[in-house]
Amino acid sequence: MRADKLGTMSAELYFEDFAVGQIFAPEETYTLTVDAIKAFAAEWDPQPFHLDEAAAEESFFHGLAASGWQTACIAMRLRVRNLHVAGGMIGAGVDEIRWTQAVRPGDTLRISHEVLSVRRLASRPEYGVIKAETAVLNQHDEVVMRMKVNFLAPVRSSESAG
Amino acid sequence: MRADKLGTMSAELYFEDFAVGQIFAPEETYTLTVDAIKAFAAEWDPQPFHLDEAAAEESFFHGLAASGWQTACIAMRLRVRNLHVAGGMIGAGVDEIRWTQAVRPGDTLRISHEVLSVRRLASRPEYGVIKAETAVLNQHDEVVMRMKVNFLAPVRSSESAG
Repeated sequence: MRADKLGTMSAELYFEDFAVGQIFAPEETYTLTVDAIKAFAAEWDPQPFHLDEAAAEESFFHGLAASGWQTACIAMRLRVRNLHVAGGMIGAGVDEIRWTQAVRPGDTLRISHEVLSVRRLASRPEYGVIKAETAVLNQHDEVVMRMKVNFLAPVRSSESAG
Repeated sequence: MRADKLGTMSAELYFEDFAVGQIFAPEETYTLTVDAIKAFAAEWDPQPFHLDEAAAEESFFHGLAASGWQTACIAMRLRVRNLHVAGGMIGAGVDEIRWTQAVRPGDTLRISHEVLSVRRLASRPEYGVIKAETAVLNQHDEVVMRMKVNFLAPVRSSESAG
């Protein structure tokens, strides 16, 4: 499979479909409104700089900013809706998240997702683990978050699958 | 400050208040309902095993399970509502997340948060970075998620603060 093909595949993907260096860059974007930032923060990250414009002006962020966890959730949403792993995208842990720039109301985010490594699981030979780096970019092509994620993909032709 | 005091403090915390080995274990819990699991998943992790009981039975999870990102958000909610860093809890990156057990409808989650290291920031001497591990536990005292997080804390008596 050519690297540039992964982003346009709608078929279900198996372990054998992934290879190091593939880049998956779906067209779908997510635009954050003030209301969406405040609603997320009220539930999961209730801090003044995510909830109130005036308080945010006086804060570290110098203005209303989205919770970093909302950015992480947007990355998951864009992965799941556009990269169809057979049986679902099952997380096998995150190795690193770095928030590199504040996300503001009106920002339009997209992801670029690069495969870093692929390996079969000794403990569960019917699965492999894909390690990938998701970069989340805004409308100015600035990276606002990077995360290294691991997820499972089933082996298409496993002789040991039960 | 004694380690067991951190969990009961309501005052705002500064860099100097943190020390390696402190454990912060607030009493607040979060109970997941079926509706809450499905609502979160519909927005951020729309996969059958988080959205539909029948499909979930046939999946890797053998029953409806919460998105791992919802568990991460619950951890943030419980940290923010119970550990009051002066100026707010500002994330400086996550080093690792591991999901160790499925979270099911009706599970009641709590956190235990241990300080792993503290260091002043050379680049911004008015801040320090606290590295801590948050364990999320269910009502059976099983760890369902572990995450190593970094957050900023302002220095109380900084001669270089502007």
